[in-house]
Amino acid sequence: MSVKPFTDLSKMCVHTITTKPWNLVEAARHFSAAGVKGITVWRDALTGREIAESRRLITDYGLEIVSLCRGGFFPSVDATKRKAAIADNRKVIEEAQALGAPLIVLVCGSDPAQPLETSRQQIAEGIAAILPDAVAAGVKLAIEPLHPMYADSRSAINTLAQANDMAMEIRSPNLGVAVDVYHLWWDPALEGEISRCGENECLFAFHICDWNTPTVDILNDRAIMGEGCIPVRKIRGWVEAAGFRGFNEVEIFSTKYWQADQSQYLQKIIQAYKENS
Amino acid sequence: MSVKPFTDLSKMCVHTITTKPWNLVEAARHFSAAGVKGITVWRDALTGREIAESRRLITDYGLEIVSLCRGGFFPSVDATKRKAAIADNRKVIEEAQALGAPLIVLVCGSDPAQPLETSRQQIAEGIAAILPDAVAAGVKLAIEPLHPMYADSRSAINTLAQANDMAMEIRSPNLGVAVDVYHLWWDPALEGEISRCGENECLFAFHICDWNTPTVDILNDRAIMGEGCIPVRKIRGWVEAAGFRGFNEVEIFSTKYWQADQSQYLQKIIQAYKENS
Repeated sequence: MSVKPFTDLSKMCVHTITTKPWNLVEAARHFSAAGVKGITVWRDALTGREIAESRRLITDYGLEIVSLCRGGFFPSVDATKRKAAIADNRKVIEEAQALGAPLIVLVCGSDPAQPLETSRQQIAEGIAAILPDAVAAGVKLAIEPLHPMYADSRSAINTLAQANDMAMEIRSPNLGVAVDVYHLWWDPALEGEISRCGENECLFAFHICDWNTPTVDILNDRAIMGEGCIPVRKIRGWVEAAGFRGFNEVEIFSTKYWQADQSQYLQKIIQAYKENS
Repeated sequence: MSVKPFTDLSKMCVHTITTKPWNLVEAARHFSAAGVKGITVWRDALTGREIAESRRLITDYGLEIVSLCRGGFFPSVDATKRKAAIADNRKVIEEAQALGAPLIVLVCGSDPAQPLETSRQQIAEGIAAILPDAVAAGVKLAIEPLHPMYADSRSAINTLAQANDMAMEIRSPNLGVAVDVYHLWWDPALEGEISRCGENECLFAFHICDWNTPTVDILNDRAIMGEGCIPVRKIRGWVEAAGFRGFNEVEIFSTKYWQADQSQYLQKIIQAYKENS
């Protein structure tokens, strides 16, 4: 299979957390100046400003808002916390609507104090509870399976098969999945499950970055595409073969790069996007 | 399902690496004095002494040698290194035979410089190459699937399904799998795959420890059973339902506990073995 390199940035999106030291204004200005076309906004980037103003600011820079990160974190042994999580997710839906973000990425959550099966059940219940709000707001939700190393406390959904199963069970045009190469690259079933997303028309987002060897921090040691061992372009080929035509979202958590000059870092990302994605 | 707690240590084994600060003599003496019945020997514990002498030393303490850790690390982009790995694995087989260890655990390896599929192919080739030597030596080999967070450089075999598939494809009474709760607890297919091991009579080893939240080091931050979120006893129930009657091997890599008083640590492990395994 031959997947062509990108020759332009028309389908490139960057997450605000990727350049975490920048506030929303700085991120929008720099992304726009660099020719990046899409932005995914993390909730923390919205603080201190009316959402309508953030929306205007971003669109004035000619950027398309790809998604809002993140909803989820439904499970808890504590029923009060589960209720609070659902209320918070309804707030995220309102924020997405106000921002004009068509999609919310769900980091589903997990509670180490209870069995994974219980957390999975609570995730399904949480999604079912907020889905009508998402439909009413015209916002989509994407279940993002997280790497199994996050199964204890961040997500009990750890393979694309699980995410697909859950999306198909709840079933709604407003519910799909997000494929992040960092979380899923190791899975021998990945190509087949991406193809299944295509059949079910539930592939809503595609996130890219790379895996460092060695990985010195379980959370914040992600690499730029091409620096690690993930076959990003090959996986993009599967995603495109499944009919995906959306943005390629660069989502990198990196203590190392957050300490670097963010403009130079963004240029490095753009180069890697063209050469290794 | 109700799985009974252990009332004695007759099926308890400890890996020498669990109490890494102790040399082989110290480990054997302390394990024996504490009532532990089995020992799994890591190769580094064999240095500086004739293997026959290590064997005598261990058996004089009344300990049963459960397995030798570890063979494997077959894949490499470099053919010379692949050849060297096979030669080294033949040496491990000789060592196991000399030691009287009936089993070698295989940490299969992975090379981030090549696709996972290539690494998997090289693992199958490596095992096929050394299997006749293992048969001739009367030693068994266990494919140990490693957590997906080690897919880049430690093992391209990351689920029990993959290990079972490979064992079934190569097929020999001397080839089976090792189930380690740390690597596999998150997998929704685990119970079914353990049951499949039973049908295929290929479940050769069972390793236990626990998962810390948060995990601060990707390699050496494992917990004692009961300290984390892994349902160790539940998984032991599946393993026993699959017909496994071997040792329950405590294998903990922990920078934290390696710095502690090893005798107190061993007592803590024994208590956890009874209460939480």
